[in-house]
Amino acid sequence: MSVAVRRLLIGRPLPTSRARHERLPKVLALPVFASDALSSVAYATEEILLALVAGAAALSHSIPIALAIAALLAIVATSYKQTIHAYPSGGGAYIVARENLGIWPGSVAGAALLIDYVLTVAVSIAAGVAAITSAFPVLTPYRVGLCVVCVFGVALANLRGVKESGRLFAVPTYLFVGSFLWMIGVGVFRYAMHTLPPPPAQAAAATDLTGLALLFVMLRAFASGCAALTGVEAISNGVQAFRAPEADNAAKTMTAMAALLGTMFIGLTFLAHVLGIAPRDGETVASQIARATFGTGAWYFIIQAATALILILAANTSFADFPRLSALLARDRLLPRQLSHLGDRLVFSNGIMMLAILSSALIVLFRGETHLLIPLYAVGVFLSFTLSQTGMVVRWLRLGKRWCSRETVVNAGGACATGVVLTVIALEKFMPEDAVRLVRLPFTLPVIGDSIRAGAWMVVILIPLMVLGFLRIHEHYQSLRRQLTVDGWAEPAPLKHTVIVLVSNIHRGTVQALRYAHLIAADCRALCVDINSEDLPLFYRRWEEWETNIPLLVLDSPFRSITEPVLQYLDAVQDGDRNHMVTVILPEFVPARWWHHLLHNQSALLLKFLLLFRRNVTVTNLRYHLEE
Amino acid sequence: MSVAVRRLLIGRPLPTSRARHERLPKVLALPVFASDALSSVAYATEEILLALVAGAAALSHSIPIALAIAALLAIVATSYKQTIHAYPSGGGAYIVARENLGIWPGSVAGAALLIDYVLTVAVSIAAGVAAITSAFPVLTPYRVGLCVVCVFGVALANLRGVKESGRLFAVPTYLFVGSFLWMIGVGVFRYAMHTLPPPPAQAAAATDLTGLALLFVMLRAFASGCAALTGVEAISNGVQAFRAPEADNAAKTMTAMAALLGTMFIGLTFLAHVLGIAPRDGETVASQIARATFGTGAWYFIIQAATALILILAANTSFADFPRLSALLARDRLLPRQLSHLGDRLVFSNGIMMLAILSSALIVLFRGETHLLIPLYAVGVFLSFTLSQTGMVVRWLRLGKRWCSRETVVNAGGACATGVVLTVIALEKFMPEDAVRLVRLPFTLPVIGDSIRAGAWMVVILIPLMVLGFLRIHEHYQSLRRQLTVDGWAEPAPLKHTVIVLVSNIHRGTVQALRYAHLIAADCRALCVDINSEDLPLFYRRWEEWETNIPLLVLDSPFRSITEPVLQYLDAVQDGDRNHMVTVILPEFVPARWWHHLLHNQSALLLKFLLLFRRNVTVTNLRYHLEE
Repeated sequence: MSVAVRRLLIGRPLPTSRARHERLPKVLALPVFASDALSSVAYATEEILLALVAGAAALSHSIPIALAIAALLAIVATSYKQTIHAYPSGGGAYIVARENLGIWPGSVAGAALLIDYVLTVAVSIAAGVAAITSAFPVLTPYRVGLCVVCVFGVALANLRGVKESGRLFAVPTYLFVGSFLWMIGVGVFRYAMHTLPPPPAQAAAATDLTGLALLFVMLRAFASGCAALTGVEAISNGVQAFRAPEADNAAKTMTAMAALLGTMFIGLTFLAHVLGIAPRDGETVASQIARATFGTGAWYFIIQAATALILILAANTSFADFPRLSALLARDRLLPRQLSHLGDRLVFSNGIMMLAILSSALIVLFRGETHLLIPLYAVGVFLSFTLSQTGMVVRWLRLGKRWCSRETVVNAGGACATGVVLTVIALEKFMPEDAVRLVRLPFTLPVIGDSIRAGAWMVVILIPLMVLGFLRIHEHYQSLRRQLTVDGWAEPAPLKHTVIVLVSNIHRGTVQALRYAHLIAADCRALCVDINSEDLPLFYRRWEEWETNIPLLVLDSPFRSITEPVLQYLDAVQDGDRNHMVTVILPEFVPARWWHHLLHNQSALLLKFLLLFRRNVTVTNLRYHLEE
Repeated sequence: MSVAVRRLLIGRPLPTSRARHERLPKVLALPVFASDALSSVAYATEEILLALVAGAAALSHSIPIALAIAALLAIVATSYKQTIHAYPSGGGAYIVARENLGIWPGSVAGAALLIDYVLTVAVSIAAGVAAITSAFPVLTPYRVGLCVVCVFGVALANLRGVKESGRLFAVPTYLFVGSFLWMIGVGVFRYAMHTLPPPPAQAAAATDLTGLALLFVMLRAFASGCAALTGVEAISNGVQAFRAPEADNAAKTMTAMAALLGTMFIGLTFLAHVLGIAPRDGETVASQIARATFGTGAWYFIIQAATALILILAANTSFADFPRLSALLARDRLLPRQLSHLGDRLVFSNGIMMLAILSSALIVLFRGETHLLIPLYAVGVFLSFTLSQTGMVVRWLRLGKRWCSRETVVNAGGACATGVVLTVIALEKFMPEDAVRLVRLPFTLPVIGDSIRAGAWMVVILIPLMVLGFLRIHEHYQSLRRQLTVDGWAEPAPLKHTVIVLVSNIHRGTVQALRYAHLIAADCRALCVDINSEDLPLFYRRWEEWETNIPLLVLDSPFRSITEPVLQYLDAVQDGDRNHMVTVILPEFVPARWWHHLLHNQSALLLKFLLLFRRNVTVTNLRYHLEE
């Protein structure tokens, strides 16, 4: 029956021969690989504004911050285009770092990426649901439930093996890009014509910070806005999916994506500024901009629908990447081997389930608040950027390029830029003001304003813990290999073999077991533990009748325990000889109905369990199947 | 470690040879067997008064009701004295009914008794704790917790194998009888001297019911008061524990017990009446009587302590009887066989645990309120009385006694009296007024006054359900016997035997398994399911190196499932031949640490599970133990 349910949910299993890559033209590859990066436009501006509001700084600072982030994006994209050319078979941060920097940095990049995939799912789904609840406020109370349903919906689609089908992705992605560009165009035009609604009065009246305080707040806002850069590396992972010439097409797609992302991000931030929009509970900034630009009409709902759709697609991208990366880590023996097994539908089902569970746990824990989840992001994103770019620099130097060669400079520039940002973000997380919050984090979670950046330290602690875990796992698999390898193994001496049949009375099952025992070994003994002496005479009589070839031993058990006499007897038989194998045969009958099991005593279970730990003892349950 | 904990709690196991019976003189047998019956004095009067209060009838009606119950007690005791003589080896209601009336009535008596033992524990412990909280009201909020602790305390003592040691029982029982008789004596003396405190004014002012309404309320009060008769049959169960002449001594003890019980019950009810005591929350009636008679001094605390002690002893009696009866039912194949197994300390441990769990569940469910539990009592008690007495009548007639012989008349009298009471009680439970309550019972539990009799219908429904269960179990054991017996069994033809070793790669564990397979059968094959074809060439090379004797079969698995190709291959090998036994050997390695298990895929588990259901297939896990 469980098989039927699985078929219904997941579909029929696919044969291994069906595994192959779909080649995409640029125009379809863009939506497939860029949906994650582009979708961050939906929340990045809001994060900057939130950080400014929380720091009591003027919202107008958002413009220079957005420009700085766009510049960073240009550097990162240029840097990654080189990775694309260098790793045409796919060069994620893990592969580049592991290959060029070694197992430790590779593990760090792997851990950072895994965390970010989990966060991407949580943030994208939460933001997608926020777009829906902004349009339909009645749904707000069911936010968390909606998020979890969406996560498992996407997981289910991936368990069925959603191909990253270009067509499936194209419509929402281009709808999103088109409608947002249209909104920005209309907004800028109306701004130029002075027909936009005037900003609310209180926005203009806000006093501003100065000096160091302002710098701190702006750094924070910058760190939060860097959420816009998540997903940029996706194209470099999937070069193989492009049509030939793969690397060239991928690099061009990267440029297009960066341009679109930068334009939309700056445009939205500009509109938010001129409209005097401040972040508020219950409606996203993007939704406010759309309402101010278009009014609450058809265009507004198109914008919201496109936002929700692309965010769910972005989550879907993580559902493709997380299982693939964890399978890679598993194949390198840094994660449990099960993560590298292909499921019924040729997808890494274990990884998909793991991602779904972790990300919904995160959503529930943070009550579906995007603002609470985004601060967790940046550390991981920039850590993997920095490691990947550094890896590229090492690679160039190893390949004989000079320090001043174009390739080295570009990647070194990328590594420096992202490294500086990483340092800023990491330091910012631990500024004195936050030190207290750090300790009482779990208790302030529900209050938005108070814990905007709380939780980022979790990532800082989590990554080393994960790396430690990877290395422990790696060690185990290596030790396993050493212990199991037959290379250079002196094969042990031939085995001596004794079979012991445990009998308590003579029934058809016992007789069958005795016949079987006789079949598999010459040295064969029957053992009866005497628990109720009253039954012995009848037992002896039947024994005489049915079995004569196998010697019968009756063990005394003054304390009515079955296990102890048997274990003692085994000690005596094996006598410390490591080449003496004993097979213990337990005759069992299998009831026809499940509740019948309750009516039979499970005294053999304890014995079976204890025998698990004995060397050179194997247990065979000989089952006699009952008919009714 | 779990063994060490068990030793500490329960003690060392006792050898079977220590099982024997302790013979008791009458003066020690009385406390052992009568504590249950005598202890009901502590709550029976209160139950009558409660029923009268709930029916808005005058409390003075308690006197005729108590007299009627005492008369019933005399009839029942006389009737049971005959059972004692007829069944000197112990004649509980189950044995008498089953032997004389058949398996159905026997099962009904058994079910009723089991329910009553559970209720006795719950009621006695709850009443004992009520005696303690009456004396120390600060403990009242912890009532339920205290009850559960007491239940498991008594269970633990019984798991250790508390002998029904006369000395242990004598002190509290005689202290209880002595102090209560002293209280009644002092009370009656002070009543005669007119020095008792006057009854409160409002008691005298109560208006009274008349006609049918009064009759109904009085019948209810009578039914509730019949709780005084619980435990009367205990002596008839334990005749063998008396010194010779057993039956005579037991019969005399029965008379003494009935006399004491009757006197104390009537005395207490009389005192409650003349003191104008009404039941109230937080203090038992017995406690109120003791306070009024003695004041809150040393005597008061002695009375409360003796009450608490004897009530806990009464629970202890059930802990002796319930496991013994369930073992008897299990031996007659009406309950799971495990209930008839003697534990480490020569007691029926499973029965003890079951009783502890059921009775504490009841206490928790009913929040430790005696008043809510007692109505459940009467149906079971009188059902077993009636069946046992009817059984005796049948027995006399079968032995050739005439209808008008003394023996027949006495037992028939007993059967009629208890039968009439049973009918009254059962009808009373379903009076129209209760019909509505019957449906919404679970929701009114917390309100005392509203649900005094609620729940009794549960017993009425439970008994048939249990009897049905007994008979299903009985049927199963009989069918099992038929299917397993070797009597008249044509032994099957000699077995053909094939061994199949499942290998996925060559390591020390696999090599060991292949050697073992070679040892136990001539027809021996190695099976490899091809899941990842890339690994095959290496596998073949190693195979050549290490194994030449056993033929290797590689099965294609397009859907990457291990189970399906193996099951298909088994079908082909066995080809429907019922005498073809296949041993499937699964090489496994056993990690040295528990968390290592998480790192290995459990793909063989599903196969093992599916093979459980195949006839003539046995699975042997050949374990290779890792060192680190």
